Amino acid sequence: MQRVCFLLKVKADRIEEYRARHADVWQEMREALTATGWHNYSLFLRDDGLLVGYLETEDFDAARAAMDATEVNARWQAEMGAFFEALDGQAPDAAMRPLTEVFHLA
Amino acid sequence: MQRVCFLLKVKADRIEEYRARHADVWQEMREALTATGWHNYSLFLRDDGLLVGYLETEDFDAARAAMDATEVNARWQAEMGAFFEALDGQAPDAAMRPLTEVFHLA
Repeated sequence: MQRVCFLLKVKADRIEEYRARHADVWQEMREALTATGWHNYSLFLRDDGLLVGYLETEDFDAARAAMDATEVNARWQAEMGAFFEALDGQAPDAAMRPLTEVFHLA
Repeated sequence: MQRVCFLLKVKADRIEEYRARHADVWQEMREALTATGWHNYSLFLRDDGLLVGYLETEDFDAARAAMDATEVNARWQAEMGAFFEALDGQAPDAAMRPLTEVFHLA
């Protein structure tokens, strides 16, 4: 099992809307995440828009690729793209660069 | 169960040493964390020193207070304090401000 942590940055003027959208993620999107191996997946938001993602998965590259291949993900990411800063033209899911785990205690 | 995420900043010139220290955390420190309710606890480090902590616990305030009361934690935090930026005179564990969870999928 891999533990994955990534960072994104929500635009300051979209933070409240981002929060509201994530309180009500489409059931179809939740099911696709589960089906493609995204487990114990949380998003945490700092007041300035820094967003931390944490999840557990067998293989993050495989989980991303499988999610990428779903139709619901394309629709969701198209709506989410405008919420983020400096994604260099990448979709938010493509811009998720995992940090290095330096400590773990079960 | 609470899922907790916090951020700290490791000084740029101490990153390699921080990483090395966390590859070899004292067994006594690991046991104290487990005994005081810190579960599935990971630390993730970005190249610039931004540090993300993630853990699961019944009650974070209680887990922090219980850890604070241990002798080993005082020794560990005294050694770790010099690794972090801008802690405003607080020990690193006291400066852990949890972010807000905006999404969770089991």
